Amino acid sequence: MSSWDVSMSNHAGLVFNPIRTVSDNAKPSPSPKPIIKLSVGDPTLDKNLLTSAAQIKKLKEAIDSQECNGYFPTVGSPEAREAVATWWRNSFVHKEELKSTIVKDNVVLCSGGSHGILMAITAICDAGDYALVPQPGFPHYETVCKAYGIGMHFYNCRPENDWEADLDEIRRLKDDKTKLLIVTNPSNPCGSNFSRKHVEDIVRLAEELRLPLFSDEIYAGMVFKGKDPNATFTSVADFETTVPRVILGGTAKNLVVPGWRLGWLLYVDPHGNGPSFLEGLKRVGMLVCGPCTVVQAALGEALLNTPQEHLDQIVAKIEESAMYLYNHIGECIGLAPTMPRGAMYLMSRIDLEKYRDIKTDVEFFEKLLEEENVQVLPGTIFHAPGFTRLTTTRPVEVYREAVERIKAFCQRHAAV
Amino acid sequence: MSSWDVSMSNHAGLVFNPIRTVSDNAKPSPSPKPIIKLSVGDPTLDKNLLTSAAQIKKLKEAIDSQECNGYFPTVGSPEAREAVATWWRNSFVHKEELKSTIVKDNVVLCSGGSHGILMAITAICDAGDYALVPQPGFPHYETVCKAYGIGMHFYNCRPENDWEADLDEIRRLKDDKTKLLIVTNPSNPCGSNFSRKHVEDIVRLAEELRLPLFSDEIYAGMVFKGKDPNATFTSVADFETTVPRVILGGTAKNLVVPGWRLGWLLYVDPHGNGPSFLEGLKRVGMLVCGPCTVVQAALGEALLNTPQEHLDQIVAKIEESAMYLYNHIGECIGLAPTMPRGAMYLMSRIDLEKYRDIKTDVEFFEKLLEEENVQVLPGTIFHAPGFTRLTTTRPVEVYREAVERIKAFCQRHAAV
Repeated sequence: MSSWDVSMSNHAGLVFNPIRTVSDNAKPSPSPKPIIKLSVGDPTLDKNLLTSAAQIKKLKEAIDSQECNGYFPTVGSPEAREAVATWWRNSFVHKEELKSTIVKDNVVLCSGGSHGILMAITAICDAGDYALVPQPGFPHYETVCKAYGIGMHFYNCRPENDWEADLDEIRRLKDDKTKLLIVTNPSNPCGSNFSRKHVEDIVRLAEELRLPLFSDEIYAGMVFKGKDPNATFTSVADFETTVPRVILGGTAKNLVVPGWRLGWLLYVDPHGNGPSFLEGLKRVGMLVCGPCTVVQAALGEALLNTPQEHLDQIVAKIEESAMYLYNHIGECIGLAPTMPRGAMYLMSRIDLEKYRDIKTDVEFFEKLLEEENVQVLPGTIFHAPGFTRLTTTRPVEVYREAVERIKAFCQRHAAV
Repeated sequence: MSSWDVSMSNHAGLVFNPIRTVSDNAKPSPSPKPIIKLSVGDPTLDKNLLTSAAQIKKLKEAIDSQECNGYFPTVGSPEAREAVATWWRNSFVHKEELKSTIVKDNVVLCSGGSHGILMAITAICDAGDYALVPQPGFPHYETVCKAYGIGMHFYNCRPENDWEADLDEIRRLKDDKTKLLIVTNPSNPCGSNFSRKHVEDIVRLAEELRLPLFSDEIYAGMVFKGKDPNATFTSVADFETTVPRVILGGTAKNLVVPGWRLGWLLYVDPHGNGPSFLEGLKRVGMLVCGPCTVVQAALGEALLNTPQEHLDQIVAKIEESAMYLYNHIGECIGLAPTMPRGAMYLMSRIDLEKYRDIKTDVEFFEKLLEEENVQVLPGTIFHAPGFTRLTTTRPVEVYREAVERIKAFCQRHAAV
């Protein structure tokens, strides 16, 4: 009898999720010190940031009712979709004449942000097509594109310009095969928040290039106001334009429940130039058939009845940690942080010449974990070699300890 | 300026989920009678079948703890994976020497059964490959295959043989491009339950053909014992064989929470012939990043501490309805039901020659909905033209009313 010859699909072989691979498979450090995780963007680690009591209460009511155990439509329940539209309209669409463009029927729920990225990209791109992808950028765009044979034109976000997108580069890279422009704001991994003008410039460029926009706004509203009380988050939804836009949002970050796997895609297209983008979202959504129903049942309460102070407090805590980290990480030999303006991350340049025996950001990551049991992430994962990314969601005392350890580590490896 | 030209991907254009399309988009019937839904396999409609109190309690505890709001590994939490392995081992693996082959590390969680099907098929099949697919069969296999350009060889399950798979046909259809044999037991849509001998024959055939097996056992244990007290569910896991097997299970059906979107894939391969199948599952799983964490936290309690009587009672209720329907639907002109032996469905042949003005099962479905507001599903959706599928999860009184309406309908359309 012949022997077995079972191999995974090429598709599966191409799936590589670097953050999850690092975090799910991290080997314990030989260091006796307790681990400090500054790697995965999980705001729940310390219970210093908590989801709202309203959301918890509503979820338990939904469970007790046993009314939400059955199938909901694959696009999500009408109530949850309405809640998303209402919340987005009220929170992030300031121009009165645009409010009517944010409607329930253009909301499609997804099973978390990663699933939303999968849906948005594959709704519009096939193998052989290209997407314009930010670098540094969240790696899941690349994970999806590679798995589906979709090409990527990487455009740079420049640290010297507060991580703004290089628009000239986008214009240069766009070709006939380019089907989608992906932007992230506020940015993971950069911790940036684009000015209103820059968001507008991106929208205008998309209009000029006739490129539908996929705007990952999962950190919507998570903007630091300490240094600039006028700092504000701007959604691509808040502009009059002919550009069909799909916006990713979710409960993971500011509602502090990434594990619940509830996100949404909001299609904004008042001129009706891309209805097949929405239709594509609905179709690829049918491959998974929608997120957890009891969680959907609590979404309206969470979005519409969580007190603004609760959300403000979460952002304020993250900002406090981010600022502590920003102010002190620079004291470590070789590290030059960029100013965090939003989201949950700080990016620091690593001046590798300052070290005797560390040649890359990956080596920096590995040795820091091994010697000090501090887990950061190497910039390479985000197409940012020579950088390191640290989360900013943990309490200040964690950063105090982390900075001490990183300082000692850098000192130990410093060039003489 | 050029006009916009935005089209969905070919991939998205190929996604078609007939059950969800029918159920999510059904137009209201003009009939004044209240709707009777016997279409989607949703056991929660009447609250006659309820999930266990233990599962509800544990879920609420998990939510209150705020310990389960963060990211879990994409394959699922260790506790939930262990619970699946333990439950399957204790419930469905009777041969002592096989018990050690059912282990936590071979369990990968998924966001419901549809997602599990997507993962299992795409883990091993690429565009141009072929899968052997049952007909009648659950349409999601076809939904996935078409969306990914995977070819299908359809083999028949024969109503005259209690819906057993035609093994000779499988042997005949298998070619060099065939990468996977898909079986469903107990079957949606057939309502069948294979004998132990037939499951063994399938496993032996897979061994002979060197085909990895994807066994959709989402209705595991849901077997009717009324007519045959020895009737039992047999898992493909319960055989000594070299065949690498992936088994789909979940909480949707016997735990009565399809909306919670928690399923699993159990890889069984004691001879180590298909480890890349497991690796493929883990990889494609990273595209979505795992099911809802709070629901995962309640899984162990649900699987291991739900009293057997609770599960037995659910099946007994479904059986009572199935038998009522079986005993009476045949009184309708032109309908000849097949005996339901498990799962949540009854398949009835439609003798179209008995009607004056109904030419197809689709027409039967449409007119029945229009005139009597009874929603069944046409066999065509399941590759079973000339049949109709009815769910058997609703209380007997619903079927009493449904049968009356169907009887009147058939009478009205009878050939003279």
